[in-house]
Amino acid sequence: MTGFDHYLSQCQKRIEAHLDSQLQNPLPQLERLYAAMRYSVMGGGKRIRPVLAYASGEALGVPVEQVDPAAAAVELIHAYSLIHDDLPAMDDDDLRRGQPTCHRAFDEATAILAGDGLQALAFEWISRTEQWQPATRLQMTTLLARAAGPSGMVGGQAIDLGAVGRQLQQPDLEDMHQRKTGALIRASVQLGALASERADSAQMAALERYADCIGLAFQVQDDILDVEGNTQTLGKQHGADAVRGKPTFPSLLGLQGAHELARSLCDQAITALDDFADGADRLRQLARYIIERQH
Amino acid sequence: MTGFDHYLSQCQKRIEAHLDSQLQNPLPQLERLYAAMRYSVMGGGKRIRPVLAYASGEALGVPVEQVDPAAAAVELIHAYSLIHDDLPAMDDDDLRRGQPTCHRAFDEATAILAGDGLQALAFEWISRTEQWQPATRLQMTTLLARAAGPSGMVGGQAIDLGAVGRQLQQPDLEDMHQRKTGALIRASVQLGALASERADSAQMAALERYADCIGLAFQVQDDILDVEGNTQTLGKQHGADAVRGKPTFPSLLGLQGAHELARSLCDQAITALDDFADGADRLRQLARYIIERQH
Repeated sequence: MTGFDHYLSQCQKRIEAHLDSQLQNPLPQLERLYAAMRYSVMGGGKRIRPVLAYASGEALGVPVEQVDPAAAAVELIHAYSLIHDDLPAMDDDDLRRGQPTCHRAFDEATAILAGDGLQALAFEWISRTEQWQPATRLQMTTLLARAAGPSGMVGGQAIDLGAVGRQLQQPDLEDMHQRKTGALIRASVQLGALASERADSAQMAALERYADCIGLAFQVQDDILDVEGNTQTLGKQHGADAVRGKPTFPSLLGLQGAHELARSLCDQAITALDDFADGADRLRQLARYIIERQH
Repeated sequence: MTGFDHYLSQCQKRIEAHLDSQLQNPLPQLERLYAAMRYSVMGGGKRIRPVLAYASGEALGVPVEQVDPAAAAVELIHAYSLIHDDLPAMDDDDLRRGQPTCHRAFDEATAILAGDGLQALAFEWISRTEQWQPATRLQMTTLLARAAGPSGMVGGQAIDLGAVGRQLQQPDLEDMHQRKTGALIRASVQLGALASERADSAQMAALERYADCIGLAFQVQDDILDVEGNTQTLGKQHGADAVRGKPTFPSLLGLQGAHELARSLCDQAITALDDFADGADRLRQLARYIIERQH
């Protein structure tokens, strides 16, 4: 295991322990709802967004425990979005990470409510965290709400729905992904930095440039894996995007063009961090990891 | 038109103008999503929650424009909950206020996303309102997230789903409704009071007692209307709860018992306001309105 693999694994363990401790059913009558929320939140995954929040905090020298609630909140938003994306009326997926999706393991109504509940919890967890100044918590809440809402993730998903069977041009495809996945990745980096309560505006701007590049690179690599990967490694149906007629970067740029775009975005992300010292090495390694990962 | 009817109508116009001005589609690619959100938010309704927020602010002498964003945020949460409740996997309703439900007017995927987007917007609208102190906004965000989330509205809906075809006892039925509708009604009163930035803890406690009584009274009256009303006045299927095997107050207490409970709750709500002067008259009138309304 390389040093970076070890770091990833440490971050994953940390966020999973935090999520597990925070997401406890308080009342017997809420058992099924909490079981569905926990099933989706505790069901593994790469935890890229929490890791980005931790690494962003590290770039500003903030102790890791100060980032926990921010890392957890972005993961709750991500988990809720997966539950709703998998629903029959949306992507109609039966499998997620090799396991039945939430609405298959429970039922559709419970899955809808579990997603709704996780979104509310994300905002509660940030706004109640007293270790941060009130102004910091408000900045975080506003940022996260915009990233998750109609101009961000939800908007990207709506554009994606409308794009099935159409060939988008590259700027439109990038705009859709910037909202659908980029906005929350950006929020992860921003919230990790805000948790330090000492990021200056130049540092925030550099981190946002970094985040925008890796956010898009992440999606390009996802599209590449959908073509190159196999169902077992991905834990979901291989080639599913093509079957659904979804526009992708490989279908627009060819597979080689997509690889080149991913590499270029990774380089730009790392360049954006030029004014940071060694503390930002985890962010640099994450940029490479995002375009080299095989699942 | 009585003075109170005029007040209701003024509040409704005010909140609708505010919602209309704030909920504008910013981008052509988001048109369908915004159309669905606007369809549900601007589709009428009694606006009870915003009116409660305004009246609660009035009890503390706060100018009405200082309450607008709080009134709007609770209405967004309410609108999102109706969209999701109406979905085929939930209550499967075709009509809401005499018009096609969101998923019938648009499609299921768009309805899911419209609900998700409205929830995020509610938190954004509060956290960005600079006329309130940061600490006030955080209190509001935390309160609203708890009222909307798994221990509040979403939890109540989950308990309700699990209760279909079962006869709940009165404490369990009250607990379910306290979460499903009571929590957001309480939050409406609390947010209106917090918007004043001068409510003391005794005043908050009195308003919360008031809110808990009218929240439950509201549900009891809803159940009564489901038995007594007709489909045209209600704008939804008359007797729908009985058909679905949902537990109701009339089925538990009889129709007369339910009427008595509603009146008793209304009296308790008004008693809770004993230490408030004339400024709380709108709240007192609202308590009576809630148990006297015919739709």
